[in-house]
Amino acid sequence: MLKRYLLAPGPTPVPHEALLAMAAPMIHHRTPEFSAIFRSAADGARGLFGTEQPVLLLASTGTGGMEAAITNTLSRGDRVLVVVAGKFGERWAEICDSFGLVVDTIEVEWGKAVDPQDVAKALAENPETKAVLVQGSETSTTVLHPVAELAALTRDRDCLLIVDGITSVGVVDTRMDEVGIDVIVTGSQKAMMLPPGLALIALSEKAWRFAERADLPRYYFDLDKERGSLEKDTSAYTPAVSLVIGFKAVLDLIAETGGFAEVYRRHAILAAATRAGAQGLGLELLAPESPSPAATGVYLPADVDGAALVKTIRNELGVFVAGGQGHLKGKIIRLGHIGYADTFDVVIAISALEMALAKCGADVSMGSGVAAAQQKLLEMYGDGGA
Amino acid sequence: MLKRYLLAPGPTPVPHEALLAMAAPMIHHRTPEFSAIFRSAADGARGLFGTEQPVLLLASTGTGGMEAAITNTLSRGDRVLVVVAGKFGERWAEICDSFGLVVDTIEVEWGKAVDPQDVAKALAENPETKAVLVQGSETSTTVLHPVAELAALTRDRDCLLIVDGITSVGVVDTRMDEVGIDVIVTGSQKAMMLPPGLALIALSEKAWRFAERADLPRYYFDLDKERGSLEKDTSAYTPAVSLVIGFKAVLDLIAETGGFAEVYRRHAILAAATRAGAQGLGLELLAPESPSPAATGVYLPADVDGAALVKTIRNELGVFVAGGQGHLKGKIIRLGHIGYADTFDVVIAISALEMALAKCGADVSMGSGVAAAQQKLLEMYGDGGA
Repeated sequence: MLKRYLLAPGPTPVPHEALLAMAAPMIHHRTPEFSAIFRSAADGARGLFGTEQPVLLLASTGTGGMEAAITNTLSRGDRVLVVVAGKFGERWAEICDSFGLVVDTIEVEWGKAVDPQDVAKALAENPETKAVLVQGSETSTTVLHPVAELAALTRDRDCLLIVDGITSVGVVDTRMDEVGIDVIVTGSQKAMMLPPGLALIALSEKAWRFAERADLPRYYFDLDKERGSLEKDTSAYTPAVSLVIGFKAVLDLIAETGGFAEVYRRHAILAAATRAGAQGLGLELLAPESPSPAATGVYLPADVDGAALVKTIRNELGVFVAGGQGHLKGKIIRLGHIGYADTFDVVIAISALEMALAKCGADVSMGSGVAAAQQKLLEMYGDGGA
Repeated sequence: MLKRYLLAPGPTPVPHEALLAMAAPMIHHRTPEFSAIFRSAADGARGLFGTEQPVLLLASTGTGGMEAAITNTLSRGDRVLVVVAGKFGERWAEICDSFGLVVDTIEVEWGKAVDPQDVAKALAENPETKAVLVQGSETSTTVLHPVAELAALTRDRDCLLIVDGITSVGVVDTRMDEVGIDVIVTGSQKAMMLPPGLALIALSEKAWRFAERADLPRYYFDLDKERGSLEKDTSAYTPAVSLVIGFKAVLDLIAETGGFAEVYRRHAILAAATRAGAQGLGLELLAPESPSPAATGVYLPADVDGAALVKTIRNELGVFVAGGQGHLKGKIIRLGHIGYADTFDVVIAISALEMALAKCGADVSMGSGVAAAQQKLLEMYGDGGA
């Protein structure tokens, strides 16, 4: 028997409250019973996004939501500026390209956040740019981008800020309206602690104005149609019934345990403790300057075979962590602390890393990472403990 | 307490084997464990579709799969012929129109199947037609279309037969390859007895050739990319993990209980018994000539308020059946017998209809419908009973 732990940057473990809610007998989606759940889930999502705008629930994973963000707001031949700082920045560029947009990119070193001045310069060079696309948190590099600073640049232009919030919504306080984000999308399998298959998206008033003139073809992801249906407490097409029910269960659970503020606080603490643990082991962080509270990327010692180490952690210790993507493959490990994660998930992650390093022949002082993580946890929880 | 029964044309009840499989702790989608499930589910789906081609699993509901069928095989300005015989035929036309195709339609009276001769005539008039789009089973009118006859018309042309199999795959023996269907799509919440959120689609060799030159924009639903990923036992983007696991559980359940042949036999029997029950009550069928084994549409007596009757059945008797859509609203009732349905679901449906008719003041001979249904069930099961 090998007890298994899911400590990836998503999918995250699903709390039993949601698993059991989703295991209840199926109900029809065109019923007052489901409409009440759908409305409640959509309303709850507004707190998560920090918006007065409707949050639309799509039966797709996050990439479908990213496509919807583009096809509903832009037109053929529009010029867009994409921040490419990792694998998911590349995905923005690919989707834009697939739909016939003119794509400028800002290439950012993997592990670094975009410099808002570079975005300002690019917008000055191409003032006709219709959208800036960025990740809130770039999952492949565990970097948090300065979304608020970017919003300050697009706010007074005829240009949208479109944010992939797949690993930032529910991880950091998003405040879409206050900050001035125009489109933001997230997925169910990250901070929302659910299986994949539900995407959530919201548009600012400005983005809805763009939507009126957007001519990119769309049908399944027709957000104006979804908005109209949501006004009637339903969805345009068959919704992902069980995931919507699970989402309502998660929102209830969050409300009962301190609300979103507590969720953001927990992510910040777990992330800080994970970073402290890695540094306590003498390892370098991939993103020391602007780390994401969703996951922590850690450089492995140069003499360790990174791919073998990830395999050792997964197969011998039963702990599912992520390796590097793209050119970081084999060089880093990514420890997730998003969603249904708590104190001892950090302890397990750092402990597993220590033990796997030892198994792979690295020189580790056993317990030094765990001790540093514990110290940081106690410090951040304050005297009252967790 | 009101015990509830879901007897709609989908979503169908979910068997506990699938509910429990989906309620197991979440696993990561990039693991050998999930890859084995994904491969097994995709392979099992080939038996369901009757094809040697790969069956692709998309994280969306059926409408997303319908969009994928079009955007992956056709090009801007292509001429298509859509059979519009109900609400879902209209949906084919809407999607084609959204993506800039030239749409010819054959309007068929609701409740009737398309006449293949009308399709032959339309193809002769417009020989440049690139695709014929039809429902295998038109859920809104409970009609089964003659897909094999249509395939005989498209087989030797530079023209695809694209079938919405959402309520025909898993209901009737589909035999995609043998019949000559080029693209067929289905959804998880129908005969596959799962929650909504998973679409399945397969393309013939001819359709894959069309896909090479298809220029409609697509990203989330990129079937060539999905095919490449499936060859590596995975999906292009995050899959609907829990639904894929549920799908594997359903396929296992079907294999253990007589296989697909038994599934088709069961649907045929339940449908025949439901029709007999309605006729035993003296009611007329919406689609007497070419009825779908997925659901049965029944005309209500002219002096009964159809909307009130559907409400009575749902709210007072706890039985969720469907009313009519479009201009059939208030005039018919649709009794589903798709997916996780068996003998006593028919008895409940007909009994509920009898009791609700009496509640609504209609002149019914109590038990006459149930008796006719029971008689037909016994007759079709043969001497051995169920």
